[in-house]
Amino acid sequence: MQIIRSVEQMQKTAEALRLEGKILALVPTMGFLHEGHLELMRVGKSHADQLMISIFVNPTQFSPTEDFDQYPRDTEGDIEKARQVGVDIVFMPEADEMYTPGAQTSVLVHRVTQHLCGRSRPTFFEGVTTVVCKLFHIMKPHIAVFGQKDYQQLTVVSRMVMDLNMDIRIIGVPTVRDPDGLAMSSRNNYLSPEERKSALSLKKSLDLADEMFNAGERDPAIIKKAVEAFIENHPHARIDYVSLCDPVTLEDLETLENENLLALAVWIGKTRLIDNRLIRDKKE
Amino acid sequence: MQIIRSVEQMQKTAEALRLEGKILALVPTMGFLHEGHLELMRVGKSHADQLMISIFVNPTQFSPTEDFDQYPRDTEGDIEKARQVGVDIVFMPEADEMYTPGAQTSVLVHRVTQHLCGRSRPTFFEGVTTVVCKLFHIMKPHIAVFGQKDYQQLTVVSRMVMDLNMDIRIIGVPTVRDPDGLAMSSRNNYLSPEERKSALSLKKSLDLADEMFNAGERDPAIIKKAVEAFIENHPHARIDYVSLCDPVTLEDLETLENENLLALAVWIGKTRLIDNRLIRDKKE
Repeated sequence: MQIIRSVEQMQKTAEALRLEGKILALVPTMGFLHEGHLELMRVGKSHADQLMISIFVNPTQFSPTEDFDQYPRDTEGDIEKARQVGVDIVFMPEADEMYTPGAQTSVLVHRVTQHLCGRSRPTFFEGVTTVVCKLFHIMKPHIAVFGQKDYQQLTVVSRMVMDLNMDIRIIGVPTVRDPDGLAMSSRNNYLSPEERKSALSLKKSLDLADEMFNAGERDPAIIKKAVEAFIENHPHARIDYVSLCDPVTLEDLETLENENLLALAVWIGKTRLIDNRLIRDKKE
Repeated sequence: MQIIRSVEQMQKTAEALRLEGKILALVPTMGFLHEGHLELMRVGKSHADQLMISIFVNPTQFSPTEDFDQYPRDTEGDIEKARQVGVDIVFMPEADEMYTPGAQTSVLVHRVTQHLCGRSRPTFFEGVTTVVCKLFHIMKPHIAVFGQKDYQQLTVVSRMVMDLNMDIRIIGVPTVRDPDGLAMSSRNNYLSPEERKSALSLKKSLDLADEMFNAGERDPAIIKKAVEAFIENHPHARIDYVSLCDPVTLEDLETLENENLLALAVWIGKTRLIDNRLIRDKKE
């Protein structure tokens, strides 16, 4: 397994592999790898000759009040996990290798970034699309793999790739959960044992919405209220948003369709967690 | 010479050529090709195995009040000129092939776009960087060639390429002029014979500034005033801007350095023309 820290060396390596006819898959990460990341890597590996990952805690997608400094890091553990899952190349640049003095360019996806997390984190997606665009140019993948847990991120990146005609196939992978149902996230690390119990309210509220929908409820306001009440009934839980929206445009729905996205962001104590589910007509 | 109209076919063709180890050069144009464009193509050809050009009058870089509908077009003449200069591939998409419904992504270069033409054409460079980024992803060049006549465009594209880590070498080519000194531009086509005489004031005012600088003048305000007075003394001429600025940041200078950019935009009747020159200390 190769560990590369320089942009120039990464570009040369990727270009040489492409010239050999190799198919390259990329899993971009912020490190502190968990089973969810490893699943993305397995999927990437199954589609490609060379599996590349990036480990980069991107400063531009954190606002000044967010947890950039506290974001968990474990470089040695990450490298060991990557090795075990069969990663070929790990790209681990320092921040000043990625952002040089005078840099002033950003990639903006205008509409699908305005909803859900875009409301409470207004500069987040500009940071994400810009760094993902840079990573694509540096690592030159044919395929890039993202988790469906970050549903909006997957939507935004797919939109960018389509709109800018990037010749890259984006693959979304279903959310990996702990046995108790909690969606895996590096931020779960912040939770106290008591908070962790409350964090289960996210997944359970998705189940509740599913049941209501399957029982025939089609009024998004009624489902949303039930989900909110359920979550708020848990200690330490404070809702950022609950949205029943169109799975493509992410715009709030006034009446439910055959396929709808229920997306949640909830503060559990000082930790902000997200989860989502496609609420579907099972008869379709 | 291959003429390609579809994004998908262009991508496949470029990818196949890259896999063969061919070096690809691109000259992006809006068509109505003149000797200036042909010079860019000759430079491109001298650096590459395959010379590609794009012909696309990009609607998103025109404001509603600008000359998109009137912009001169001559597809047959362009194809003949491209053939003569040895172009291998002409990419000529329709607007709806480049911009599909739902597209909502743009590339923004934040600071160097705020000066010079960015002041009078506030959405122009967003249109330019977005379409150039798309063309780079579609046509996959190793090298792209731009004219120094559009100095700010060359600066903005170079900045984008650097900031987004695009693995593309940008080459700037000196302005090609008619024998009377007028910088070649598709928009020269709009000028009446009388207006054309006034249009020579742009190039002559650059000569004037050069002479003043070489005679020791170092106050940008004095040179700027002389340039403005000279141009305004010509019928049909109305100044959009005259700027003595830093050649990298494009910020106005309060005192002149060893290397300075003098950039002009002037309305000649209803036609807006630009020109520029690096005003340099010849002893350096």
